[in-house]
Amino acid sequence: MAEYRKIDTCKVRRFCEVVFQSHGFTADESRTISDVLIRADLYGIESHGVQRLMRYHDEINSGMVDPNAKMETVHETGISAVIDANKAMGQLAGVYGMNVAIQKAYTQGCGMITVRNSNHYGIAGYYTNMAAEEDLIGICLTNTEAISVPTFGSQAMIGTNPIALAMPADPVIFSYDAATTVVPRGKIEVYKKNDKLLPEQWALDKEGRSSINTVEVLDSIIHKSGGGIAPLGGVGELHGGHKGYGLGIIVDIFTAVISGGLTSNHVNITPGHTGICHYFMAVDYGIFGDKTAIKENMSGFLRELRESKKAGGQSRIYTHGEKETEMMAAQINGQIPINEKTIEEMKDIAGKQGISWDLC
Amino acid sequence: MAEYRKIDTCKVRRFCEVVFQSHGFTADESRTISDVLIRADLYGIESHGVQRLMRYHDEINSGMVDPNAKMETVHETGISAVIDANKAMGQLAGVYGMNVAIQKAYTQGCGMITVRNSNHYGIAGYYTNMAAEEDLIGICLTNTEAISVPTFGSQAMIGTNPIALAMPADPVIFSYDAATTVVPRGKIEVYKKNDKLLPEQWALDKEGRSSINTVEVLDSIIHKSGGGIAPLGGVGELHGGHKGYGLGIIVDIFTAVISGGLTSNHVNITPGHTGICHYFMAVDYGIFGDKTAIKENMSGFLRELRESKKAGGQSRIYTHGEKETEMMAAQINGQIPINEKTIEEMKDIAGKQGISWDLC
Repeated sequence: MAEYRKIDTCKVRRFCEVVFQSHGFTADESRTISDVLIRADLYGIESHGVQRLMRYHDEINSGMVDPNAKMETVHETGISAVIDANKAMGQLAGVYGMNVAIQKAYTQGCGMITVRNSNHYGIAGYYTNMAAEEDLIGICLTNTEAISVPTFGSQAMIGTNPIALAMPADPVIFSYDAATTVVPRGKIEVYKKNDKLLPEQWALDKEGRSSINTVEVLDSIIHKSGGGIAPLGGVGELHGGHKGYGLGIIVDIFTAVISGGLTSNHVNITPGHTGICHYFMAVDYGIFGDKTAIKENMSGFLRELRESKKAGGQSRIYTHGEKETEMMAAQINGQIPINEKTIEEMKDIAGKQGISWDLC
Repeated sequence: MAEYRKIDTCKVRRFCEVVFQSHGFTADESRTISDVLIRADLYGIESHGVQRLMRYHDEINSGMVDPNAKMETVHETGISAVIDANKAMGQLAGVYGMNVAIQKAYTQGCGMITVRNSNHYGIAGYYTNMAAEEDLIGICLTNTEAISVPTFGSQAMIGTNPIALAMPADPVIFSYDAATTVVPRGKIEVYKKNDKLLPEQWALDKEGRSSINTVEVLDSIIHKSGGGIAPLGGVGELHGGHKGYGLGIIVDIFTAVISGGLTSNHVNITPGHTGICHYFMAVDYGIFGDKTAIKENMSGFLRELRESKKAGGQSRIYTHGEKETEMMAAQINGQIPINEKTIEEMKDIAGKQGISWDLC
């Protein structure tokens, strides 16, 4: 198992900012990107945290991410906009896109923003929570490189295509953020590191059959040689795999189809270009009546769910966002655990970018 | 197995219309309700077709459905409305709600309509397809009586809460319509009729454990004595059950929480009142640019999915809506298969309402 070291959050944050500045991002931009990364670690979502620094470093160097990219609004109405991110860092496209959605929600009641030609943007929940902090409902979708196999298919055609939605509630906001696949790729990688076989219905081999062969599945994914991860609901129709498959399509509709960008099956195919697409929506729920009453309805419903009868051996039913909020509360003024391998990568980046590692 | 008889579609339709008129609905209203029911049979979705006539007959007689109900707009903005259906027939609330959404989409780009105090409205796809036929994106959600158990819980708290979305495409529209549970209740009933054990991960017993005991599960559901159906993704978190659980909550947010109606766990608790809530959204995708180009993107993406590599032994990959469209094309001018049990129920209703059965 991986070894972790606790490091002061503010130091990790400053290191990230310096890395992005060294790549040509402004101080403001570097702060934004780093905030999204650190937030993932604070939420306990290591896969989307600072462990991605090396990947971003490589993507900037290879030209997939353009530090000088400017967001371009290619179409706009009172309630909508289509933005070409021109290969911007995904986090910058994300914050920009959700801010436009929020502004439109303030003035028009809702804003629907679709973004093309972007890059990986980290945790979707960061952007939906921006809307929730402004007392709005936030919705956020993104496509990704194809890794999920359509029902009755054997070829990865759709991304993990997560759906995120946040809405204010007391004492903790509702914040849903989940892939439309059974699991993300990272989970398969963890099983490989631990030499474990996969659970049935997580993944498919090249012939489109459920496979528990961790090494073979991961190898096929990496080499795009067939097979991949099952949509939410699993392989075939028995457990509703066609439902997860359809939800993945819906994410591609709002991100890629209506923006004129690349659908999942075309993402990350062309060298030097991912073409990832996003969708940001903010809704002022005051367009449906008194906000205080609606928020009380929401808080009450979530409370009823949490207080409903537990399964044998379970002491708690969660509503979405609770785990992350509690994790963050425990860590925000302190330290976050960083994988030793990630620390090595950070040192490597420091060397390449001529940044002092003493910073940490 | 059940026996079926083929009956002329137009005769079944006329019989349904006469039944609803005998209950006090106008000719127009009766035509609308019947059209939604017949469409389900034409799509091959028997569970939501005319086999529900007896249930509706009973709900009207018991006062759960009020044939004289008038839709009441309790809050409205340019892009939104909250409608109190005042115990109207769900199909009438559905067509009314989606028509308001469509009108707002025409003038404002989008319409978001939430409806409280309604009843079962049949297939959600009927309403989303109304929007798609007007060259809009249609979204439709409904809550239902609680039957799904939250992750780590043992008590049904959330309905099957289906999500439906339709968008124009050539040669066939995309029309997604699926419960956020692994299966609907009807599937469990079919397993019982055939004396079969349930697949693992479909349902939970009173202690919140996965159960394959068909009789016990159905008995618990009927008597609300604990357990129920698993959210999409199954029992626990291993296959993503917490994702389906969260999608169910999202449906309750847009249907019940923002309309001030009853969330799933309060639906069908009070005698003489279901309190089911819906949500209808129409989006003119022209707010994102040239509609012809966007529709071509959509058609091309769906074609790529259908033409992608098949799993061993499979000859076809479907996109959502294809099966129903093909089924309807084969039956629209002809006959539909009606279960002998349903025919007996129709005769029973005819007797009670003083309607001639010769009609068929």
